[in-house]
Amino acid sequence: MIRTAIIGATGFTGSELIRLLHNHPSFDITAISSESKAGKFIHEVHPAFTGMIDLKLCKAEELKVEELDLIFFALPHGISMDFAARFSAFKGKIVDFSGDFRLDGPQTYEAWYGKEHTYEEGFHKAVYGLPEIHREAIRKASFVANPGCYPTASILSLLPLAKEGLLNEASILIDAKSGTTGAGIKPKAGTHYTAINENFKAYGLKTHRHTIEIDEQLQAVANKGLKVQFTPHLLPLDRGILATTYVCGAKQKPADLGQLYRDFYAEHPFVHVQDTLPDLKSVRGTNLCRICVDFDHRTQNILVVSAIDNLVKGAAGQAIHNANLMFDLPEETGLSIYPIYP
Amino acid sequence: MIRTAIIGATGFTGSELIRLLHNHPSFDITAISSESKAGKFIHEVHPAFTGMIDLKLCKAEELKVEELDLIFFALPHGISMDFAARFSAFKGKIVDFSGDFRLDGPQTYEAWYGKEHTYEEGFHKAVYGLPEIHREAIRKASFVANPGCYPTASILSLLPLAKEGLLNEASILIDAKSGTTGAGIKPKAGTHYTAINENFKAYGLKTHRHTIEIDEQLQAVANKGLKVQFTPHLLPLDRGILATTYVCGAKQKPADLGQLYRDFYAEHPFVHVQDTLPDLKSVRGTNLCRICVDFDHRTQNILVVSAIDNLVKGAAGQAIHNANLMFDLPEETGLSIYPIYP
Amino acid sequence: MIRTAIIGATGFTGSELIRLLHNHPSFDITAISSESKAGKFIHEVHPAFTGMIDLKLCKAEELKVEELDLIFFALPHGISMDFAARFSAFKGKIVDFSGDFRLDGPQTYEAWYGKEHTYEEGFHKAVYGLPEIHREAIRKASFVANPGCYPTASILSLLPLAKEGLLNEASILIDAKSGTTGAGIKPKAGTHYTAINENFKAYGLKTHRHTIEIDEQLQAVANKGLKVQFTPHLLPLDRGILATTYVCGAKQKPADLGQLYRDFYAEHPFVHVQDTLPDLKSVRGTNLCRICVDFDHRTQNILVVSAIDNLVKGAAGQAIHNANLMFDLPEETGLSIYPIYP
Amino acid sequence: MIRTAIIGATGFTGSELIRLLHNHPSFDITAISSESKAGKFIHEVHPAFTGMIDLKLCKAEELKVEELDLIFFALPHGISMDFAARFSAFKGKIVDFSGDFRLDGPQTYEAWYGKEHTYEEGFHKAVYGLPEIHREAIRKASFVANPGCYPTASILSLLPLAKEGLLNEASILIDAKSGTTGAGIKPKAGTHYTAINENFKAYGLKTHRHTIEIDEQLQAVANKGLKVQFTPHLLPLDRGILATTYVCGAKQKPADLGQLYRDFYAEHPFVHVQDTLPDLKSVRGTNLCRICVDFDHRTQNILVVSAIDNLVKGAAGQAIHNANLMFDLPEETGLSIYPIYP
Repeated sequence: MIRTAIIGATGFTGSELIRLLHNHPSFDITAISSESKAGKFIHEVHPAFTGMIDLKLCKAEELKVEELDLIFFALPHGISMDFAARFSAFKGKIVDFSGDFRLDGPQTYEAWYGKEHTYEEGFHKAVYGLPEIHREAIRKASFVANPGCYPTASILSLLPLAKEGLLNEASILIDAKSGTTGAGIKPKAGTHYTAINENFKAYGLKTHRHTIEIDEQLQAVANKGLKVQFTPHLLPLDRGILATTYVCGAKQKPADLGQLYRDFYAEHPFVHVQDTLPDLKSVRGTNLCRICVDFDHRTQNILVVSAIDNLVKGAAGQAIHNANLMFDLPEETGLSIYPIYP
Repeated sequence: MIRTAIIGATGFTGSELIRLLHNHPSFDITAISSESKAGKFIHEVHPAFTGMIDLKLCKAEELKVEELDLIFFALPHGISMDFAARFSAFKGKIVDFSGDFRLDGPQTYEAWYGKEHTYEEGFHKAVYGLPEIHREAIRKASFVANPGCYPTASILSLLPLAKEGLLNEASILIDAKSGTTGAGIKPKAGTHYTAINENFKAYGLKTHRHTIEIDEQLQAVANKGLKVQFTPHLLPLDRGILATTYVCGAKQKPADLGQLYRDFYAEHPFVHVQDTLPDLKSVRGTNLCRICVDFDHRTQNILVVSAIDNLVKGAAGQAIHNANLMFDLPEETGLSIYPIYP
Repeated sequence: MIRTAIIGATGFTGSELIRLLHNHPSFDITAISSESKAGKFIHEVHPAFTGMIDLKLCKAEELKVEELDLIFFALPHGISMDFAARFSAFKGKIVDFSGDFRLDGPQTYEAWYGKEHTYEEGFHKAVYGLPEIHREAIRKASFVANPGCYPTASILSLLPLAKEGLLNEASILIDAKSGTTGAGIKPKAGTHYTAINENFKAYGLKTHRHTIEIDEQLQAVANKGLKVQFTPHLLPLDRGILATTYVCGAKQKPADLGQLYRDFYAEHPFVHVQDTLPDLKSVRGTNLCRICVDFDHRTQNILVVSAIDNLVKGAAGQAIHNANLMFDLPEETGLSIYPIYP
Repeated sequence: MIRTAIIGATGFTGSELIRLLHNHPSFDITAISSESKAGKFIHEVHPAFTGMIDLKLCKAEELKVEELDLIFFALPHGISMDFAARFSAFKGKIVDFSGDFRLDGPQTYEAWYGKEHTYEEGFHKAVYGLPEIHREAIRKASFVANPGCYPTASILSLLPLAKEGLLNEASILIDAKSGTTGAGIKPKAGTHYTAINENFKAYGLKTHRHTIEIDEQLQAVANKGLKVQFTPHLLPLDRGILATTYVCGAKQKPADLGQLYRDFYAEHPFVHVQDTLPDLKSVRGTNLCRICVDFDHRTQNILVVSAIDNLVKGAAGQAIHNANLMFDLPEETGLSIYPIYP
């Protein structure tokens, strides 16, 4: 068994990792940490685990790193960089959930995150953990920066077009809608039940940090400067991201978009290209990204709709996928899950 | 009192009309009809009215038209045209909720609705009932075609730009999200609780009938051929439409978009231009359209977010607004409502 | 106009009071206060009011009491008693939303609320504001203790039985279910969206403070010692309380329970006894209590189901009802509302 | 592998069985049937299975029974009895989801189901499939009548008390609340999204068919005539039943109820007795029943709160549990699942 620890195990992505790893045959959770909840059992923080798992939370400094093969940093941005520095001598593998090492360097980070980056070295080691782009690099990596939830749904919607040069000169708009788990576990006015329930709104217009993450990855694939318009919205539901993406004014029209996407993703087990529009429940609890692509002859726009579970393919599931690659396990290990429906 | 009847009183928009007219000082509901539920009391169909209202549903043919001043057709498309023909000699005023008389003529109707139009004369009488465009014509009209819910939110988002010539040459994309009441009262697989709850999806890509309604109204204002990309989505909530609209590639950049919108809507009591992004609950139960407009200097795109209650400003409330105009009442009569929050 | 102030205007019941008073012809809101939000406009705290109301929050000490006729204390328990003491010389009328003056005295209060009571004099002045019991006393009162939301639904379910002596010797069980607004506006782990959504639970078994409030009122009416078993639950929705009440082992069986209830409530405009089981949406936004009573011959138990909107009949609406009585206005003034459905 | 068929695979319990069996190491789905959807692929009926499972629905008559070891009847009551008769010569094992063979005979069935029973022989073979009562009988059974969802939650709440003789003379009240999947997949007015969402109601007072199922099982254990008061309610959520149970007037008071329950369920892996009140999300997607028991010294009533997922422990999961027993597999095979939270 691969000895595994989770740092920051009490947030939504940390607890989702515990849930998913319960069915993983090779990764064995040997320790979980939380700076604020250390000393408590995990079921005291998450009563849903009562009677199922008997792990006590420790402080990260109490972890015996020499007895670990794999560490997941289920931490928010700004915190992760400190831990990356502290664990720089760790001999095993690390998958980091935060935004701290996803971008091309500290300048971009500081411009979009409004915060100084204190561990520039991390950028040299980190591989961006979207297996559909960087699978081979991930296999060899010791530190993977797990993608953001919105970028996962967004980049996968556009990747075949970027590869084919179809994004050049085009206006690209991503109108994304996320469930409330994406806003984190910490209670605040904006996540109070009554603020979300029977409600819907846009937020973060023009400035959401995931914008630059999408831009950088697509630019690298397209080998071209690109700027997407990214607008997130908050849905009155727990899990899932649906991204509706528009490519306007693409000069060259592809012959068969569906086939282009199917071919591109043929070897990627977690991306399913389909003829019907996906809904969120058909990916819930799974590591799937479902994609439907279409062309509107009336407007000459390309339309793409993609759906993921933000806590799985958008976080904990993709992290396990990355760890599977890093440990040379079959990609789908522990992730062959049917959606919970209804 | 203005003697008022509702034909098709048992659907969501019909019953919303009953609710709103309860607080209207001048329109008195004297009859309600339903072809399928005639003979029942309204509270037998909608138990929420139990003990509050004592009206019995009749067949439309039983209405004594000579004793009526105003009729609301709360009917679906395809049905309304038959009633419009039957009531062509009616001396009072009619507000029609359907899509049957909103477009420029039977050819366009048949192309988008896939159905023959049987009452072409209706198009000559009908005035498109968006008061923010056609207020003066509505005052003089005897037959008003009440706008669709999506077109109301969409057109109001773009109207000041259309007027200023800022839509020319631009790509226009409307990503709209609607609550489930928009799908009607009839039970079907797609509106089963479990199909909507904790779920979200796009539908009607490229082909939704409201697309042409938006196009026609904007073309008339802009005096220019325009084609919007319109994509509706289904939200897990009862009421409300939020439309996120993108205008890409506008050649001319407006100096101050917020001021442009404020000035345009200064004399229109139900459109509120605001600096903060609107949410659906802040218009729930009201006849308001809340709009926030912004410009992204990074992408050079104009962004507009608008919110309405699809059953009020998108249907029954706007119908009352139109009727107020037709009977020369103050526009806000019976419609001064605070949102029900939370 | 009756000059009205709301102390504690930013909670759910305070803002609901603002919403309802907008349609009240006699009560004019001249001031609103909040100790923590003083200096802000109400729409800065509740954006749903943007563009609708232009009131600025002050500190309670800034209120000019000599210019006020009516004050609503929309305050939590433990805080209200301080304000009651501070406003003891106020010449107008006060309606208090808290639990501080609902019980028979400080000893009971301290036993159930776990807190010392600092204003015993308040108990002498306070009239318990359930008009269906104390209507005449309320008319003459200067200080009304507005009932709790659960007690309103619970007591109204049992009142005719208590009056008829049918509760003697019986086991009485109230299984109540409340929407989340009952838990208040303050963000905490238990009201985080994901803690409530798609979830349901019981809480406060055996110890909920509303238990003693129900007991005391029923004891006074029945003139007999009674102890109800009261169990509250938290529903994944915003508004409404549904109470399912069981009376087991009543010695005497009533001839016609429905008629008994109808007769009892004949002169009370906000209690509607009906043959069909009520649901929460059929009272939403209204001051109604809908009640259905039944007898199970198989088990010999009496069953009562009642439904209210916890923010209206359970708080702000009942407060207005009480104020109407105190100012000798018709009971339904400003409260003739159809439910918002759906 | 044990060759398994599902008859009636397209309802909520049938599709849940498909989902759960995906992770079962011994039961291999070789055929699925649906009389109304025969000829379609399962993913055409349930798009959530798109790309995951490639089974085509057949008619039941097309099943090759000689190649089957196990059949699940995921059928409604009234239909199952026909299939039980048709498959009476089947040599393998059958688990029936319907209510047709749960009661003690056709007379009781007809009294509560209002329908003639056409296959009386079935009652002789059928074992009531609640493993916590009939585990040994189930091991030897060829036909198991899988319990109803409400009876599962209700009986498990009361079983230790029934065994200890603590239910004698007592009033027993079960106030149960179920998610909407319990109402079935067929669209109807009562399961329309807007009828359930933001709503809550009681239904089936005094007459729900599950009442007699609970009575019969408890009577057999208690060896005493007992009549429970059972009241179901409909929750605005997909999955889960929470039952709040009251035992009033029990003559003998148990020393330590928690210990009594813990001891009773010590050998039953799917019943978890806990000190904290369970919520629905902490059992979602799992075969667990979580139970908390308490005693109110003030009222002398016993209180029990239990929670299950109605589609798993209340249907498909319990069916697999029964099949595990019938095939002498470890009880937890394929059912070791952490709840999906949030």
